[in-house]
Amino acid sequence: MAACIFCKIIKGEIPSMKLFESEKTLAFLDIGPLSYGHSLIIPKYHGAKLTDIPDDQLSEIMTVTKKIASASGAENYNILQNNGRAAHQEVDHVHFHMIPKPNAEEGLVIGWPAKKGDMERLKSLCEEIKAKM
Amino acid sequence: MAACIFCKIIKGEIPSMKLFESEKTLAFLDIGPLSYGHSLIIPKYHGAKLTDIPDDQLSEIMTVTKKIASASGAENYNILQNNGRAAHQEVDHVHFHMIPKPNAEEGLVIGWPAKKGDMERLKSLCEEIKAKM
Repeated sequence: MAACIFCKIIKGEIPSMKLFESEKTLAFLDIGPLSYGHSLIIPKYHGAKLTDIPDDQLSEIMTVTKKIASASGAENYNILQNNGRAAHQEVDHVHFHMIPKPNAEEGLVIGWPAKKGDMERLKSLCEEIKAKM
Repeated sequence: MAACIFCKIIKGEIPSMKLFESEKTLAFLDIGPLSYGHSLIIPKYHGAKLTDIPDDQLSEIMTVTKKIASASGAENYNILQNNGRAAHQEVDHVHFHMIPKPNAEEGLVIGWPAKKGDMERLKSLCEEIKAKM
């Protein structure tokens, strides 16, 4: 997509700190990192959300992400992929963050407002979701 | 692994709200959800961190995650996989969270302490990571 900053990086129209490239996938360092080693792993196929990417374009995305996590040497790290503004997505081209968590000050900060689930509601939701698959 | 709660769920020794199952992958609802629809997608292969899972056990994990996200009907959602206690991992068997973000109160809360990266440090880090791949 012409206006997409990640498509421009894929085409080489914008420079990037490239870590890995294959036919389907590109990985590069985030230059506004949450911690050093913070990397982005993207499918070359342009789509805003995970649900927009064809299955065959996703088959190697986690093995590439694993490769980057391993090479970064991080002991603790988060893999994060955000979909939609409300979910903190800023660039509308699917991207997986690999974010080392070296200490409390650097890396991803997670808030976890878990609830005890209502089991009846969960049971009917389970059936509902399965019916849509 | 005998003591692993997710391995027990895979074996059916502990009940779960199962959404999808294949030879390599299992998906089920989280019963302590951040939002309704919060699901866990796991490789059946036991390993604590992403870097512990063989490539061939990861090939379908994102297409299953996509399938669950799609069936949940969530417009905004986060995919999150935590590695290590410091990165908020609680169960030592790799699991991807698919967490709908329906509003500000429910779903994942993200803190993003980004810095402007030091370009010289990023350049040398890029070479360092590539050399380890």
